[in-house]
Amino acid sequence: MLSFENDYSEGAHPQILQALADTNFVQQVGYGEDEYSARAKEKIRAAIGDPEADIFFLVGGTQTNQVVLDALLHGTEGVVAAQTSHVNVHEAGAIEYTGHKVLTVPEHGGKMDAGELRVFLENFYADPTYPHMVYPGAVYISHPTEYGTLYTKEELTALSRVCREYKIPLFMDGARLGYGLMSERADVTLPDIAALCDAFYIGGTKVGALCGEAVVFPRRGAPKRFITHIKQHGAMVAKGRLLGVQFDTLFTDDLYFAISRHAIHMAEKMKKGFAERGYSFFLDSPTNQQFVILPNEEMERLSGKVRFSYWGKYDDGHAVVRFATSWATSPENVDALMKLMDVQR
Amino acid sequence: MLSFENDYSEGAHPQILQALADTNFVQQVGYGEDEYSARAKEKIRAAIGDPEADIFFLVGGTQTNQVVLDALLHGTEGVVAAQTSHVNVHEAGAIEYTGHKVLTVPEHGGKMDAGELRVFLENFYADPTYPHMVYPGAVYISHPTEYGTLYTKEELTALSRVCREYKIPLFMDGARLGYGLMSERADVTLPDIAALCDAFYIGGTKVGALCGEAVVFPRRGAPKRFITHIKQHGAMVAKGRLLGVQFDTLFTDDLYFAISRHAIHMAEKMKKGFAERGYSFFLDSPTNQQFVILPNEEMERLSGKVRFSYWGKYDDGHAVVRFATSWATSPENVDALMKLMDVQR
Amino acid sequence: MLSFENDYSEGAHPQILQALADTNFVQQVGYGEDEYSARAKEKIRAAIGDPEADIFFLVGGTQTNQVVLDALLHGTEGVVAAQTSHVNVHEAGAIEYTGHKVLTVPEHGGKMDAGELRVFLENFYADPTYPHMVYPGAVYISHPTEYGTLYTKEELTALSRVCREYKIPLFMDGARLGYGLMSERADVTLPDIAALCDAFYIGGTKVGALCGEAVVFPRRGAPKRFITHIKQHGAMVAKGRLLGVQFDTLFTDDLYFAISRHAIHMAEKMKKGFAERGYSFFLDSPTNQQFVILPNEEMERLSGKVRFSYWGKYDDGHAVVRFATSWATSPENVDALMKLMDVQR
Amino acid sequence: MLSFENDYSEGAHPQILQALADTNFVQQVGYGEDEYSARAKEKIRAAIGDPEADIFFLVGGTQTNQVVLDALLHGTEGVVAAQTSHVNVHEAGAIEYTGHKVLTVPEHGGKMDAGELRVFLENFYADPTYPHMVYPGAVYISHPTEYGTLYTKEELTALSRVCREYKIPLFMDGARLGYGLMSERADVTLPDIAALCDAFYIGGTKVGALCGEAVVFPRRGAPKRFITHIKQHGAMVAKGRLLGVQFDTLFTDDLYFAISRHAIHMAEKMKKGFAERGYSFFLDSPTNQQFVILPNEEMERLSGKVRFSYWGKYDDGHAVVRFATSWATSPENVDALMKLMDVQR
Repeated sequence: MLSFENDYSEGAHPQILQALADTNFVQQVGYGEDEYSARAKEKIRAAIGDPEADIFFLVGGTQTNQVVLDALLHGTEGVVAAQTSHVNVHEAGAIEYTGHKVLTVPEHGGKMDAGELRVFLENFYADPTYPHMVYPGAVYISHPTEYGTLYTKEELTALSRVCREYKIPLFMDGARLGYGLMSERADVTLPDIAALCDAFYIGGTKVGALCGEAVVFPRRGAPKRFITHIKQHGAMVAKGRLLGVQFDTLFTDDLYFAISRHAIHMAEKMKKGFAERGYSFFLDSPTNQQFVILPNEEMERLSGKVRFSYWGKYDDGHAVVRFATSWATSPENVDALMKLMDVQR
Repeated sequence: MLSFENDYSEGAHPQILQALADTNFVQQVGYGEDEYSARAKEKIRAAIGDPEADIFFLVGGTQTNQVVLDALLHGTEGVVAAQTSHVNVHEAGAIEYTGHKVLTVPEHGGKMDAGELRVFLENFYADPTYPHMVYPGAVYISHPTEYGTLYTKEELTALSRVCREYKIPLFMDGARLGYGLMSERADVTLPDIAALCDAFYIGGTKVGALCGEAVVFPRRGAPKRFITHIKQHGAMVAKGRLLGVQFDTLFTDDLYFAISRHAIHMAEKMKKGFAERGYSFFLDSPTNQQFVILPNEEMERLSGKVRFSYWGKYDDGHAVVRFATSWATSPENVDALMKLMDVQR
Repeated sequence: MLSFENDYSEGAHPQILQALADTNFVQQVGYGEDEYSARAKEKIRAAIGDPEADIFFLVGGTQTNQVVLDALLHGTEGVVAAQTSHVNVHEAGAIEYTGHKVLTVPEHGGKMDAGELRVFLENFYADPTYPHMVYPGAVYISHPTEYGTLYTKEELTALSRVCREYKIPLFMDGARLGYGLMSERADVTLPDIAALCDAFYIGGTKVGALCGEAVVFPRRGAPKRFITHIKQHGAMVAKGRLLGVQFDTLFTDDLYFAISRHAIHMAEKMKKGFAERGYSFFLDSPTNQQFVILPNEEMERLSGKVRFSYWGKYDDGHAVVRFATSWATSPENVDALMKLMDVQR
Repeated sequence: MLSFENDYSEGAHPQILQALADTNFVQQVGYGEDEYSARAKEKIRAAIGDPEADIFFLVGGTQTNQVVLDALLHGTEGVVAAQTSHVNVHEAGAIEYTGHKVLTVPEHGGKMDAGELRVFLENFYADPTYPHMVYPGAVYISHPTEYGTLYTKEELTALSRVCREYKIPLFMDGARLGYGLMSERADVTLPDIAALCDAFYIGGTKVGALCGEAVVFPRRGAPKRFITHIKQHGAMVAKGRLLGVQFDTLFTDDLYFAISRHAIHMAEKMKKGFAERGYSFFLDSPTNQQFVILPNEEMERLSGKVRFSYWGKYDDGHAVVRFATSWATSPENVDALMKLMDVQR
């Protein structure tokens, strides 16, 4: 069955599979000390414009959020995140499992507002009982957000300024970073992110890899003994080459950006198709996730013919439904989806 | 440089890479709900002779030990393991990170003795202060052990009997299980293991896969909400197909066993080569890891020409050195190693 | 300086000190196995009308919430609590430290609404992604709440019904339980609480003891190995007699109830005094904590003459201020406070 | 029944009860900010000869070990302790609960040897795989030890030197510190301990207090946000005065030392009595715990007439039994014990 359920329905970009095959029998040292990982790190350092960045490869997104935040936070600290953020809702308590509270601020299309963050921090320190409370020790944002929205450079700069004023690191979850960078409305670049954040990751799993996320700590910013910390959290892979080869491929000849741009084109095509058919959107997403408002009956009729994600109730007669494109989405599939929409009505 | 450093120096068995390529564009549901995972589980259930076994795929060995033991143990409990066991020494405290103590018993060539385990448990309950102590809540063994040794069926049965008497689960770390099953001196089969253990894993990473371990809870024995538990521990992969396709391939036409047997043949060939050249062994390993006693100078001369693992000091003039074969070791490489040994002297 | 800052400004009720002195040289077994603890438990069982209740004594409130909830919750579970609840705000992340998320629902004068709780639970299980979310595994309420408010029997019954329907335990934080039971508007009794809750504690620290909270699990409901769990959490006292003697005294001749009633009388007297002087209240509290709206300048002038708790901003010109009475408050002190209020204006 | 079971069978020294009564109605701020705590800290600073020491009061011994070590250790670190140490055996895994491994070295009469500690640390860093292992991050010793033995100044200095060389803090568990300081063979003073250790606690619970341990971090050495850390671990008492008044009393007019000396005199008297009757000792303890070797039948006959602690089997016919004195032991009680011994035979 045709699927727009998410951006991880297929395997990997064929060039990645080819690279895995090509390097398969070259013997390498384990645990991320292989030459492919080293090469991938150099290419990523070039792409973000920070030759001194510390880079590590992990397997998945929740794992990365958990491992990075637990390293950034002191025992008395929690992470500030938007109410709807992935770490607050959809990680089965992975952050709390490591002993840290998720401190929530309001969300606006999935985004955190720098002004509201400042008020949160001001209020915390203004409360005379704050030593009996969880200290805000890091800020978590995602870009794109869970709603596909993007921060402008001005917004990201404002968040970064608040964080630096309060001396707490700004961490960006970039599970879908490629789609954010290649959006037609993209306002921030990889070097911007490296300059404004203290930690972030470049998502591989949802952008063409079999698995893998590249964690970046700009300006030699890796937490103490991060390798041992990764091992202790069960997040180290013996065959680090698996991650190294993939990111080496993604950051060769701008493959990461090219395939992300393709996904954006497909999303724009799909968006146009929905709009032409008179559908409205739950919000205006400039990336690969589109949130369409469907009459309940249409959603039900559709559900046997194409896979998508139910996002929630809109009103008594309507639901919000997510359709995602990816590096693997073909124009033919988008056309097929539109045909299904026509038949539906 | 030639390497016998470990059994994860190469990528994956070519049939696995082929299967990943063949299935690459078939859209699948995420998080382990894909059809390849389902198929792999069926094949594993057949191989272990337990149609009701609960099976899950995880990424790596330390992660698996951590996730499984934290699910099996009550908060007041620790895991009993041999002094030299992987969970006690080389997992950077991954078990303690989850709040559980590793309770140690003596080791004999890396193995735990059922009689000593019984004494440990008897002594625990005989001590009137035991409610102030960590309860033994599971037993961890590895097969093969860190020293390449194997349990006999009698030994495993004895351990299982003690565990069942005390109502604590027996968990087997099978990171190198294939090599244990295919050893010329193998005395236990997969169905034996499924019958005698309450949880175990079939290692993929060190036996031909890019990554992946198949966790088995025989007799519908999965811990409560194990899926959510996996997610919370950062151990769930979005593209579960990556693990499913690999184990589906490994358990098709007995590939897992065939490639394990090959590694054993290579180990026997290597062992014979060392013996013929008059080297002695630290212990008699019947699997793919061989522990050779080398004069210090030979070890140093060798170290620029082939990769191996330094295992520890033997006496003032000698060291224990580990040479490992794997599914990927060729006879030519073993010959090359032997030539290097001849040149060394 | 006169203080209405809280209900733990003085030491202990004199009868408690006397009992400690009287029993001082009687040798006792440690760790809660002393005869005073046994006797106190029997008296509490009689007071709550449950001869089979499991009872344990702990030292303080945050400790009790932490130790009890960590025992009640499965690893995949969090506790549902009102947004303003103590466990969510003022325990420095003690719950998250044990790995569990605090799942919040709205508050109404500090209270949780059974209907809203039901909606929360319904929504959780209606969300198809719930296996990737923290399961609601217990419900936490406090009685009186942080705002001094009380549940009616109808409200508590409704909460209990929802919890039992969803098979999750209802836990009541009774740090100030005496003041709740003796309020002029008290609608629930100790036997009601024992019947409707699955765990609760009878606060000692704020109701006449030097320290100590009596944890009750009605109907033999103690979690597995709770003694070892207490020890592991650093919450066991060697001289358990310290807690036993205190609760034995508090539950002899209804001392606990008598001194709580006194605090309520003092609160009513204070409340009347404020009302007569034209002050309004932030909310209508029927217990020993009164939340008065003061003009900012009055609050400042007052702050050098009497101790109270700043509760937050009311509007630009006013603040909410808490005045608490306790078992130790004298009518003279309330009169002195009122005189200060008169001078203030 | 007469008891020599431990040093916490009675309540508190009468002067402590008197001080609690005398100060009972003086209103104080909570959470350790009271004036009695401040005064007690000043007196302790004088006694240890460090005017800049950071001091905190906690409730019990296991709690103190847990709270202090979890603050001293980085996430990747464990604590090095003797095999028989309290943290390794009798705290129900309280250290592991906080995520840290107890790394064990051999014991000699309960003591750790500086030379063996050095070898342990050297071996750790000599092992090329150490980044995959738990880092030694602190050293735990107790003084007196679980066996009543004492470090000499030379031994303590040697341990301190190794710790400083490796830049890891030395933490001394002083649950029975008074008895160690007042032993006839005491070689180290409180100022010595403050100079040589980086953290230690002065035990109150076993030396005359109802409860309470005074944690000392010499030279302004308190870990970051230790107050919030205490709160988060459930270890903060609302009525901090309870601990402040007790330590204020113990450190007024050298009460702590006087009552400790008395316990030593009683132990020496008891020891002499056993020796005169021909009993031998498991080891030569210079403090308040004496370990006597008793024929099994004598032990059994005795067990209905006096309380003591069974310490373990000595040989088939004998057991090791602990008799403890304390600040509360009277000469008459020692005489009564000796009479029982005479009757026994």
